[in-house]
Amino acid sequence: MSSDNEIKLGFFSQDVGHHVAAWRHPDVPADGGMSLDFHRNIARTAERGKLDMVFFGDQMAPMYPEDEQLGGTSRMLRLEPTALISALAAVTTHIGFVATVSMAYFEPFHIARKFATLDRMNGGRTGWNMVTSFESREALNFNVGVVSPPELRYRRAHEFAEVVKKLWDSWDDNALLRDKESARFFDPARLRVPEHKGEFYSSRGPLNVERSVQGQPVLVQAGSSPEGIEFAAHHAEVVFTAQSDLGDAQAFYGKVKGIAASQGRDPDHIKIMPGVMCFIGQTREQAHEKYARLQALITPQVGWMVVKQHLGVDISALPLDEPLPNFTASTGQLSRQQLLIDAARRDRLTVRQFYQRYVGSRGHHVVIGTPSDIADIFESWVDECAADGFNLMVPWSPGGLDDVVDLLVPELQRRQRFRREYTGTTLREHLGLPVPKSQYAP
Amino acid sequence: MSSDNEIKLGFFSQDVGHHVAAWRHPDVPADGGMSLDFHRNIARTAERGKLDMVFFGDQMAPMYPEDEQLGGTSRMLRLEPTALISALAAVTTHIGFVATVSMAYFEPFHIARKFATLDRMNGGRTGWNMVTSFESREALNFNVGVVSPPELRYRRAHEFAEVVKKLWDSWDDNALLRDKESARFFDPARLRVPEHKGEFYSSRGPLNVERSVQGQPVLVQAGSSPEGIEFAAHHAEVVFTAQSDLGDAQAFYGKVKGIAASQGRDPDHIKIMPGVMCFIGQTREQAHEKYARLQALITPQVGWMVVKQHLGVDISALPLDEPLPNFTASTGQLSRQQLLIDAARRDRLTVRQFYQRYVGSRGHHVVIGTPSDIADIFESWVDECAADGFNLMVPWSPGGLDDVVDLLVPELQRRQRFRREYTGTTLREHLGLPVPKSQYAP
Repeated sequence: MSSDNEIKLGFFSQDVGHHVAAWRHPDVPADGGMSLDFHRNIARTAERGKLDMVFFGDQMAPMYPEDEQLGGTSRMLRLEPTALISALAAVTTHIGFVATVSMAYFEPFHIARKFATLDRMNGGRTGWNMVTSFESREALNFNVGVVSPPELRYRRAHEFAEVVKKLWDSWDDNALLRDKESARFFDPARLRVPEHKGEFYSSRGPLNVERSVQGQPVLVQAGSSPEGIEFAAHHAEVVFTAQSDLGDAQAFYGKVKGIAASQGRDPDHIKIMPGVMCFIGQTREQAHEKYARLQALITPQVGWMVVKQHLGVDISALPLDEPLPNFTASTGQLSRQQLLIDAARRDRLTVRQFYQRYVGSRGHHVVIGTPSDIADIFESWVDECAADGFNLMVPWSPGGLDDVVDLLVPELQRRQRFRREYTGTTLREHLGLPVPKSQYAP
Repeated sequence: MSSDNEIKLGFFSQDVGHHVAAWRHPDVPADGGMSLDFHRNIARTAERGKLDMVFFGDQMAPMYPEDEQLGGTSRMLRLEPTALISALAAVTTHIGFVATVSMAYFEPFHIARKFATLDRMNGGRTGWNMVTSFESREALNFNVGVVSPPELRYRRAHEFAEVVKKLWDSWDDNALLRDKESARFFDPARLRVPEHKGEFYSSRGPLNVERSVQGQPVLVQAGSSPEGIEFAAHHAEVVFTAQSDLGDAQAFYGKVKGIAASQGRDPDHIKIMPGVMCFIGQTREQAHEKYARLQALITPQVGWMVVKQHLGVDISALPLDEPLPNFTASTGQLSRQQLLIDAARRDRLTVRQFYQRYVGSRGHHVVIGTPSDIADIFESWVDECAADGFNLMVPWSPGGLDDVVDLLVPELQRRQRFRREYTGTTLREHLGLPVPKSQYAP
């Protein structure tokens, strides 16, 4: 576990909830994902719960291309996340905001400037989730048209991150004098011009935005491939991951922190936060009712579509209420997907039950129970070195987030595992991360 | 003049003012340009004045490269404008926001998504100022490294704008059903996939953001070259321009509207708004004092630097208080620059007076006087078909904007040439622009 006893909690916001049928939930405003009011209320609720941050993923294309023929999900639409967090930070005071932006379709100057601007404006509450983008449906929206292989993507990403960091260090902390009397706005000796010319990127600099109160935005990463882990251990300060098994999570945690340590980093300065989808009830029965209610809203068509996209298998011709037959995954992380299929057959699921189980969470860790049940799991994962905290994927919003803030957070506070008030004002302070020194500092 | 009698007013926000020495003004917070609080107060003041919009230019590099050795201006720094307007719209309710983003360093999908997101979030209060970028110091921050010639830039820009518009029309107005009962989130028959493959750009689409209440963001353009005027007449709905002579302004106004009409556009749907720097006083003497106060804050070093950059002439060796000798401009729009030099010699200006006159406004229209003086000028320009309104470049902020809102706006309201309350909620409504139909509409 991390050196302080406190569990880190992010709210992973996606549309009106992570469950694919969330938009059909009776309490959910179906157009919420496209509405600033909806997101503002969510962000304020998360801040009321003293969460560390709100995290936004991104896709620069519809999530399910087949949906263009079906029209069955809300996943075709998504507001651009940096514009969104800029607005949300303006109407909140403490909570941090992380936005995902791809390194595949921007250059380092874009990203450095965008996130430096956000971090200046919101007083050091910004993080950047660095992704390399591997979906060809996104590539088709840009001139490049195709996705590069992982090895190349990560080689480029390393250089990308180095250039962004150089640009962020363009201005020494004391470079801006703003001395009206002497007419010296800045000290040219404390301006660092990167003059970067590398294998993939050229950027002269300097950046036209100065450093923020937290020095630099927090760097976040979510890749779990060998290249992704290597990249995270080198650059990331927060790692999101999909782990549903304690042992696997411990192995991942140890590996990332170990590689980071071997590179001379303090392993406590890289926070591992697995995603977890929570159904929380005052009683276990209530929690299971909430789960069942959403699962029943998945139509067979959406079920077939999501299974086909993630597992590469067409199950639409199978009778819905007959047992799942034996079959083999043909896309995605094959070994992992096969485990899901094998488990479903072992549990004697019907076709309908299988797609419901799979589609509801898409393989993410699902916990269903009372605040006490879930706090037990969170404590054990943190105490047993499987996580420093969690990125909460609520199934539907705002109800699912209300449950986190009104039920789970108070339970964690009672156990003295979560803050009752913010003790700092920056995202780095919330997460217990240091302010990075400029690479030009003596 | 435009078909309605009302003068359009934009606030062209730049750092702590358009005057190069604004940051040294005793009433100005010298770090205001980098502060959201500063910009929030400015935006709220502009909204109190019922202005149509706040406009932000952009530079993706320091404005004066020589300043890297001098440190004498605040122009090295600039927040990224789309992030800024996102935050400002979240803390205002009516006023529009226009941000400049270059077509040289982004692809159409980026821009379409960014501005569609902003326009959805702020309820149709967004405009995009479309620039092609001609400064090599910006190009050096990106892989491309060099600036293309104007003909090529504008050929690319035409295609760029077409692709952005196609992406904005991805969703018919009635495409999003969000029908929980039938599980149909959208109607696939009303989704338009652009599948664009052109000379310069490929973008499959569709855009993952639906149309806003004003249909599309307002398109703004500022080029004054022949290619720029052609582009504006074809695409722009608002044209910013630098005109300081009534006759020149009338010629420009007639030309842009004439070309637009010849292309089948309603000339009333393209608003011409020249930039104007106002020094406003209760008396003329007071106004001239405000002007002189700022002019005196321009150091010789900054004066030399700006003259050198814009005119290509080094005047640093000339005695400051001797008459300006004869010399020839060697950069920029030569004929225009030479007029400025000739006028200065005719007026027997000293070297110091010359750089002060030039550097203070950089050739923009400067008006100095009482609210009544300035309202007279505004009325005559609008009534004599030289402008539909003005883009107000206040010399220093917030004081210069306070003068606009507290002195000039009430005078225009008394003359019934400016609104007393907003009558609409979108930028199109403020400007009197129609909601564009989808290109796929029957």
